[in-house]
Amino acid sequence: MTLFMDVHHGMQGVSQKQLAEAHRADLAIEREEGVHFQRAWADPSSGTVYCLSEGPSEEAVQRVHTRAGHPADEIHPLALSVS
Amino acid sequence: MTLFMDVHHGMQGVSQKQLAEAHRADLAIEREEGVHFQRAWADPSSGTVYCLSEGPSEEAVQRVHTRAGHPADEIHPLALSVS
Repeated sequence: MTLFMDVHHGMQGVSQKQLAEAHRADLAIEREEGVHFQRAWADPSSGTVYCLSEGPSEEAVQRVHTRAGHPADEIHPLALSVS
Repeated sequence: MTLFMDVHHGMQGVSQKQLAEAHRADLAIEREEGVHFQRAWADPSSGTVYCLSEGPSEEAVQRVHTRAGHPADEIHPLALSVS
């Protein structure tokens, strides 16, 4: 499995409720694509949303987001990570 | 404390060793600014690096990164998060 960071732009003013609803919509169908959305963060002022997921491919991550009604603007495979 | 996502561009080909060294450089001085860098991820092919941190301000996060030799290109306060 690969880790991915995907980015949504243009979400100015997004609320905690909207973010939670969007995340639940992903979680409801993600297993069909072998994807798991671990976390999502949002900056309502710039309208930027980041989603951290693991899955078999960028395409699988985008299919879940698209079916849930919010395709990503960017998707990056995260080959490296530190904590 | 606020959560922040900062983004570095132009890091094509970054290695796990380089990412770990950069992260250690941040960790070594972060306390002086009341910042903690929780995780960092990198996509060597697009040259994008994401850093998740908590701290008192964007300026404090940027001061740590700048003193460690790698100022961020973007810093977003993450008012909202879900998992």
